[in-house]
Amino acid sequence: MTEKGTDRRMYKGNFIFAPAPDRLETIENGYLLVEDGIVKSLSRTHSEREPSIPLEDFGDHLILPGFVDLHFHASQLNQRGLGLDRELLPWLENYIFPEEAKFSDPAYGKEVYQRSVKALARYGTTRSVVFATIHLESTKILFDLFEQSGLGAYIGKVNMDRNSPDYLRETFEQSIKDTLEFTKDFTGGNDLVNPIITPRFVPTCSGELLKDLGDIARNKKLPVQSHIAENLAEIDWVKELHPTLGSYANVYEAFGLFGDSPTIMAHCVYNSDEDISLMAKNRVFAAHCPYANLNLSSGIMPVRKYLDHQVPLGLGSDVGAGHEVSIPKVMVAAIQSSKILWLNSSKKLKPLNLVEVFYLGTKGGGEFFGQVGSFEEGYEFDALVIDDGDLGTKDLTLEERLQRYIYIGDDRHIQERFVRGKRISL
Amino acid sequence: MTEKGTDRRMYKGNFIFAPAPDRLETIENGYLLVEDGIVKSLSRTHSEREPSIPLEDFGDHLILPGFVDLHFHASQLNQRGLGLDRELLPWLENYIFPEEAKFSDPAYGKEVYQRSVKALARYGTTRSVVFATIHLESTKILFDLFEQSGLGAYIGKVNMDRNSPDYLRETFEQSIKDTLEFTKDFTGGNDLVNPIITPRFVPTCSGELLKDLGDIARNKKLPVQSHIAENLAEIDWVKELHPTLGSYANVYEAFGLFGDSPTIMAHCVYNSDEDISLMAKNRVFAAHCPYANLNLSSGIMPVRKYLDHQVPLGLGSDVGAGHEVSIPKVMVAAIQSSKILWLNSSKKLKPLNLVEVFYLGTKGGGEFFGQVGSFEEGYEFDALVIDDGDLGTKDLTLEERLQRYIYIGDDRHIQERFVRGKRISL
Repeated sequence: MTEKGTDRRMYKGNFIFAPAPDRLETIENGYLLVEDGIVKSLSRTHSEREPSIPLEDFGDHLILPGFVDLHFHASQLNQRGLGLDRELLPWLENYIFPEEAKFSDPAYGKEVYQRSVKALARYGTTRSVVFATIHLESTKILFDLFEQSGLGAYIGKVNMDRNSPDYLRETFEQSIKDTLEFTKDFTGGNDLVNPIITPRFVPTCSGELLKDLGDIARNKKLPVQSHIAENLAEIDWVKELHPTLGSYANVYEAFGLFGDSPTIMAHCVYNSDEDISLMAKNRVFAAHCPYANLNLSSGIMPVRKYLDHQVPLGLGSDVGAGHEVSIPKVMVAAIQSSKILWLNSSKKLKPLNLVEVFYLGTKGGGEFFGQVGSFEEGYEFDALVIDDGDLGTKDLTLEERLQRYIYIGDDRHIQERFVRGKRISL
Repeated sequence: MTEKGTDRRMYKGNFIFAPAPDRLETIENGYLLVEDGIVKSLSRTHSEREPSIPLEDFGDHLILPGFVDLHFHASQLNQRGLGLDRELLPWLENYIFPEEAKFSDPAYGKEVYQRSVKALARYGTTRSVVFATIHLESTKILFDLFEQSGLGAYIGKVNMDRNSPDYLRETFEQSIKDTLEFTKDFTGGNDLVNPIITPRFVPTCSGELLKDLGDIARNKKLPVQSHIAENLAEIDWVKELHPTLGSYANVYEAFGLFGDSPTIMAHCVYNSDEDISLMAKNRVFAAHCPYANLNLSSGIMPVRKYLDHQVPLGLGSDVGAGHEVSIPKVMVAAIQSSKILWLNSSKKLKPLNLVEVFYLGTKGGGEFFGQVGSFEEGYEFDALVIDDGDLGTKDLTLEERLQRYIYIGDDRHIQERFVRGKRISL
């Protein structure tokens, strides 16, 4: 039965995954067959016909899809928990821009990025979409570190050629040159680590830069990430800078950066219903970053509207505005924020439930990577083995154990991490 | 200089404490002298005159006052993270009451309570105000476990004689009898662990029970704790039960349970301005439990108003509606909740800052215990030694290191715990 050279492995345990926002699958003592890193089958019984396949038995542990973080600033790890009495723009100016400037020194970059990649692995974030800084050398180091780690990621060399301090601003020419250099090996193939076009946000990128980045993305079929509608002062500023282009989303669209290639927009706190419809139409992903939005007093993204509009959607830690690397903690914050919005909307916007946020933090975000974030057939085997024994599992269903782990578990409960079938070491 | 039998110890390290909501003291490489568990002095230099006093040097570590939790249900540890798609009343009925009923079995009580006390110690909560259940035997066990632990606590045998299931309801007579038995040894002396009168909340206590509990508290000078104004349905219910007594606060007051002896009221989400003024006048403590209020979709307590009215105020984990035992995590939630309230109030209710929540989680709540929660002279030496080396301390001020630790530290960073001068072992 086995084709020559095919790597086949069987894993046994309690599998939990969400194929849809309203559906949780739990398979107690299931058997999952992986072929060359891809899920082949998941069943409640062990096929007697395949005794030659090595079986790893994780006993009573939970096996979950790896967590997906759609918005992580690897360069801001050192700024977590600092300056959070500010709102977005002064926080950037006083805390983030001075920190990011340090990444002109590749040695500094390497030191921080090693810790960032390790933190993602430790907290079970098997795939992430990452902002570096404007600095080419440091960003290449980050790329290499991800490749060495075995984690999956999109890495963005950040572009900014206006409205930032001298010490953290590129010329238009350098920005394009470095972007082309950083993305030159991208083939659109099956690599685990890939570049992504990353204009920081409209205020720090001239129209000419945005336009050329849009062209590069379209021509090279490169994905795109940026920020949108996080804070009201930011939105006013964009309006001032581009008074004739319409909404914030329209500005990105005008420059070919709103879905011409696969795109993620972080925050989406204040998008209009028209903008939300546009995101759905263009299949632009929204990265919901509830902790960052609370920490910077930005507001609460109305996630329910995005789900109703069927906008592709995932979660973001947004480290360092978000202080938690852990996607389960972000899931909890997403639920909590949505409960406040439910109260604030006269109970119109129904709160998110556990299955919905679990979906967002696995398959929802995973869709940006292809077939990632689920244990359905054909999905890449990204998985976490969770030993929740000390959380008290007695008399609990698998769904309750998942809830419990999401709310009160931490990195110590993650016993094993797999990405595309390969075990990750910390 | 040393009196005979006086225990004197000197500790060296980076001391941080908040004597007031708007004042943070940081003493780098300070020397703190403790006599018989009480802070005698804290200075930047080592007195040469006292070479005989043993000195413990904690190097570059932070030394903080122990954390204070004004509202912790020791019986709900096993329910953390479960059923949080419900609001207060159905959550109680479906999850909490069935769980609390299990504490009729002292063996079950012992098993859970051991873990609850250990969790408090692990997370650096050196003082707590605790709900047990209605069951005398289990509650006595909890009391003994706290005494053995070295932690400080007020322990409440819960009273409920109406509006709860048969399996979790006392008769009026039994409730009073068991309360008298549980509190019989209370002398008002200097013990670290003491009983506290604990009517669950108005809906589950008849008027006759509330009145007698008020009398007991006043006669024996026992403190009181309960819940107030957590949820709108709960408030309506109280109004229905006591239509002529006025506000929820007025109901407690009518039965002598609103400040006749030292009193804590948890939640205070929906108290009127008059009720807030009454709390200030009667010196009734508010326990702010932001995680519980988010998790049960209750709302956000306007803490700023309570600070402005100078209501005595501290933080509560409210485990199990709150999922985090850690008071630093509760501090972060308090800040985040207040930022939403700031946005919702057209920026009228200024958000809480780090110093304010740090004060609330140490000296603010500590005031319920006397001189607790600060390193001022005369305060009991409750302290945590924090090794924050792996959080990145380079170039940070002590205030920034505190911020960082509060946001991203966890129990692993707590190296030592002291209560009233004595080291606590886990």
